[in-house]
Amino acid sequence: MTSDRPLDLLNEAKNKRVMVELKNKQRYVGILKAFDIHINTVIDEAQEIDEEGNPKRSIGKVFLRGDTIVIISSQ
Amino acid sequence: MTSDRPLDLLNEAKNKRVMVELKNKQRYVGILKAFDIHINTVIDEAQEIDEEGNPKRSIGKVFLRGDTIVIISSQ
Amino acid sequence: MTSDRPLDLLNEAKNKRVMVELKNKQRYVGILKAFDIHINTVIDEAQEIDEEGNPKRSIGKVFLRGDTIVIISSQ
Amino acid sequence: MTSDRPLDLLNEAKNKRVMVELKNKQRYVGILKAFDIHINTVIDEAQEIDEEGNPKRSIGKVFLRGDTIVIISSQ
Amino acid sequence: MTSDRPLDLLNEAKNKRVMVELKNKQRYVGILKAFDIHINTVIDEAQEIDEEGNPKRSIGKVFLRGDTIVIISSQ
Amino acid sequence: MTSDRPLDLLNEAKNKRVMVELKNKQRYVGILKAFDIHINTVIDEAQEIDEEGNPKRSIGKVFLRGDTIVIISSQ
Amino acid sequence: MTSDRPLDLLNEAKNKRVMVELKNKQRYVGILKAFDIHINTVIDEAQEIDEEGNPKRSIGKVFLRGDTIVIISSQ
Repeated sequence: MTSDRPLDLLNEAKNKRVMVELKNKQRYVGILKAFDIHINTVIDEAQEIDEEGNPKRSIGKVFLRGDTIVIISSQ
Repeated sequence: MTSDRPLDLLNEAKNKRVMVELKNKQRYVGILKAFDIHINTVIDEAQEIDEEGNPKRSIGKVFLRGDTIVIISSQ
Repeated sequence: MTSDRPLDLLNEAKNKRVMVELKNKQRYVGILKAFDIHINTVIDEAQEIDEEGNPKRSIGKVFLRGDTIVIISSQ
Repeated sequence: MTSDRPLDLLNEAKNKRVMVELKNKQRYVGILKAFDIHINTVIDEAQEIDEEGNPKRSIGKVFLRGDTIVIISSQ
Repeated sequence: MTSDRPLDLLNEAKNKRVMVELKNKQRYVGILKAFDIHINTVIDEAQEIDEEGNPKRSIGKVFLRGDTIVIISSQ
Repeated sequence: MTSDRPLDLLNEAKNKRVMVELKNKQRYVGILKAFDIHINTVIDEAQEIDEEGNPKRSIGKVFLRGDTIVIISSQ
Repeated sequence: MTSDRPLDLLNEAKNKRVMVELKNKQRYVGILKAFDIHINTVIDEAQEIDEEGNPKRSIGKVFLRGDTIVIISSQ
């Protein structure tokens, strides 16, 4: 049996590599360490990437406020 | 008897192919796996498509934050 | 006696033809099947129309997230 | 004694002619039939008007989502 | 002793002349008749003014939805 | 022992001179008289200043709706 | 055992040097002194920096309203 709640499915990506796209068009890749019901999210080993996926800057561990997030995709 | 609550009707589209349009104009097609009352949504086999419906990129399973969604249509 | 609550009045339009205008300027016409207190709305036999009312595309049954809606008018 | 709550004062305008201005700059005139605490509003005999107050289109009974409204003025 | 809650201080301006500035840059002057915790506000003898403070139009009693308001200043 | 809650730290600035920056880019300086959990704020002896910190207009006591505020800094 | 809640991870950065990026593109560096569940945040020894990380102005202790924050990264 599999869950059909979005946050359960997001939970499957924990400690795995994800890409997060923000409303301001920024994209980050890194390891999904934590999220909550507001989709506040912590990413470790985070890199901001450009539209082609090339790294722009490495910024370690980042806290992303949930209401700025559009998409979280697993990689 | 049929339900007349929007989320019940959205539930009929579960595990079926849908198109999701976002406030930032992005469009995704894929299999609707999950949603919640905030319309946080998980789509599997997701593809971003352009305005003509042609695929731009394949991104597997994605979590879409509910407040970025404008429309979900079944296909 | 008639109700004076907006959602009761919106309820009178159920199963009737409505036009929905969104914050992103899109307009849809179709049969109002369901709505909830957030004004999440399901329209059946939906067509996106242009400013002159001409159909741009037919998209069947659509779920519209409430916070994207500006106006719902009966026709 | 007069009430000093905004919704009580808005209630005085019920069944009277009002102008509603929206965040998207649209202006509507018509008879205020209903509103709720979110300022979701139903206007009957509604006309969209331009900046000079000239009618642009007649649209009968409309439901306006509260969060799109800037001002409601009595006429 | 004086209160140090914003709404108590706003209450001191009731029935006095205020200027209200909105997110859409509009400015109104008039008599503050009512407000609530959402800062929904009713202004009587309202005039829309331009940036120099010159009246653009007189609109009597207006209801301003709280989330459109930036500043209320006493005059 | 010092508190580590943001509003407690903001409280230390009460009755002191602060600068408030708004989402619409306006900046105000004045005496912080009151704020609440929404960051609705009352400033006395308020002056709108330009980017260089020069006064543009004096507006006495102002109520600033919390959701328009970006930063409050002590001076 | 480590926590997997975003605010617990943010707590690890308390009293350490962080960079905060706002929705209006401003960036601040300073010592994270406090935050709450809304991500209202107090930064001490704050400096606004430009895109290259060069200081633009020093502003001491600042209160940042949570809904303006995009990212908080440790340094």
